[in-house]
Amino acid sequence: MKIKIAIAGYGNLGRGVECAIKQNPDTELYGVFTRRAPETVKTLTGAAVYHIDDILNHKENIDALIICGGSATDLPTQTPYHEEHFNVVDSFDTHAKIPEHFSNVDKTAKKGKKIAMISVGWDPGMFSLNRLYAEAILPNGNDYTFWGKGVSQGHSDAIRRIDGVIDARQYTIPVEAAIESVRKGENPTLSTRQKHTRECFVVAEEGADLKRIETEIKTMPNYFADYDTTVHFITMEEMKQNHSGIPHGGMVLRSGKTGLNNENTHIIEYSLRLDSNPEFTSSVLLAYARAAYRMNKEGLSGCKTVFDVAPCYLSPASNEDLRKRLL
Amino acid sequence: MKIKIAIAGYGNLGRGVECAIKQNPDTELYGVFTRRAPETVKTLTGAAVYHIDDILNHKENIDALIICGGSATDLPTQTPYHEEHFNVVDSFDTHAKIPEHFSNVDKTAKKGKKIAMISVGWDPGMFSLNRLYAEAILPNGNDYTFWGKGVSQGHSDAIRRIDGVIDARQYTIPVEAAIESVRKGENPTLSTRQKHTRECFVVAEEGADLKRIETEIKTMPNYFADYDTTVHFITMEEMKQNHSGIPHGGMVLRSGKTGLNNENTHIIEYSLRLDSNPEFTSSVLLAYARAAYRMNKEGLSGCKTVFDVAPCYLSPASNEDLRKRLL
Repeated sequence: MKIKIAIAGYGNLGRGVECAIKQNPDTELYGVFTRRAPETVKTLTGAAVYHIDDILNHKENIDALIICGGSATDLPTQTPYHEEHFNVVDSFDTHAKIPEHFSNVDKTAKKGKKIAMISVGWDPGMFSLNRLYAEAILPNGNDYTFWGKGVSQGHSDAIRRIDGVIDARQYTIPVEAAIESVRKGENPTLSTRQKHTRECFVVAEEGADLKRIETEIKTMPNYFADYDTTVHFITMEEMKQNHSGIPHGGMVLRSGKTGLNNENTHIIEYSLRLDSNPEFTSSVLLAYARAAYRMNKEGLSGCKTVFDVAPCYLSPASNEDLRKRLL
Repeated sequence: MKIKIAIAGYGNLGRGVECAIKQNPDTELYGVFTRRAPETVKTLTGAAVYHIDDILNHKENIDALIICGGSATDLPTQTPYHEEHFNVVDSFDTHAKIPEHFSNVDKTAKKGKKIAMISVGWDPGMFSLNRLYAEAILPNGNDYTFWGKGVSQGHSDAIRRIDGVIDARQYTIPVEAAIESVRKGENPTLSTRQKHTRECFVVAEEGADLKRIETEIKTMPNYFADYDTTVHFITMEEMKQNHSGIPHGGMVLRSGKTGLNNENTHIIEYSLRLDSNPEFTSSVLLAYARAAYRMNKEGLSGCKTVFDVAPCYLSPASNEDLRKRLL
């Protein structure tokens, strides 16, 4: 019996889950649920499309529902609505609001005796896990998270809102010297500016004041003002040719000391280099959908995060096989 | 109430656990149990020393027992003996014999309603975890484990057994070109020789036939014959000055494809650089001793591995705090 997965929301993340299901033979895609008119949505693999308002009619056919909306607007309202009826997985990534999201979701999930797995992906997600494991092993130390090189959708959108800008792509780039200092065990104190730089590729309207656009970008509070930012003006053709991918990545490092007098230094480093940010995130979501379904079958319910999931639940392989092959 | 830890066996690993307990204020060292005459053993921190034969008299005072013996001889007999009476943690690392060790231990641990956590450390241990997580996320891919640069005790011992050798230290070194190929997503097929080289530092007896020793090392089956090996003869003084540490490390990489037509490549890399192999292993053992104790308090019993432990059990922090700080 395959695990029947449904997708709510059909953007990059939804398409990523659809592709991931093809690679995981213990899962199958039951269908895509959308707020658009279903007949206008064409799926990559020909999967069935339903309107989101009809989802309760499909309740008995869905083992886990992966919510593929955006954190800011969709997830806070969607996840608590659905998780009374379904095992759900989301990628809620507004770090500061996770405790609030957790407590909202926990209540209804427990009421419906379902599992709601929140904040799944790579950060939050795999990076969070690595921060936890590393801190538990090396309590006397510091951790460092670097992002990139990769496209930040939020920063790209912020540039696109500037008058005279047609299109934009922003890359977040970790500062190599900062990473090297951490790797050497120097435990540096790093300012925002010392950790990352921002590189922007901008297509401007003909005749636009490029100097003004560049200044508006570089002085934008929260997004750019605290960083060393470079701006390149390019043609739409160059944009399409060289900047159409959505790569990302980054690393979590922990540098810690052990020994009677803290005489030994250890460096733990976890890094990701991703051709497609949404497809990797989707792959993590699907593994945790498997876990949510299996944990719920064992009688567990309520809100869970990656911290609450024993790794064996993520794999379709038996525990015997995992011990034999991977331990 | 602190978690009361006992140590069985007082070598490098036992001393490492003793130091790690100092860094973890929710734990305390109840005592060290040894096969030697207790009065001959002096602990680093002045901890109490008892004879191992008396350990059952201390049963009520010990929350978790960390077995710090060697895999080959001590662990297969020690762990199944103790885990009927204690929550135990060991670092059993003979990969091929893990399934057998698991089933022996599982029976008695269940009988005693205790948790026995086996094969804890970094490989098996943290590396195993990373193989599992990465395979579950990227099922269409390959994983690669490299070890080093670091001292292999087994290989150093093998050289010391050669006639005319006084002391020896062997470093396992990963081949940079192989790592780079994996990082590029080339999915190489790598022979033993292509993955690691071996570098040996040897102190020979005066007048010994150095040519013969070098040949004996390089042609030694299993240990060296399948590798490119270099041998350096040095003085005992150089050995003490430059090769007294026990550094180690390594990395687990997974390269996997996603997308409708496998068009996107992702690289997951986990690496360790350790000044002291036994102290890092000890730090992992202590975190899993905490988990064993907590899981047992919740009513769980039987043999467990790192695959069965939800990450939150490893940290002394509350789940709320973990979500707030690390998710």
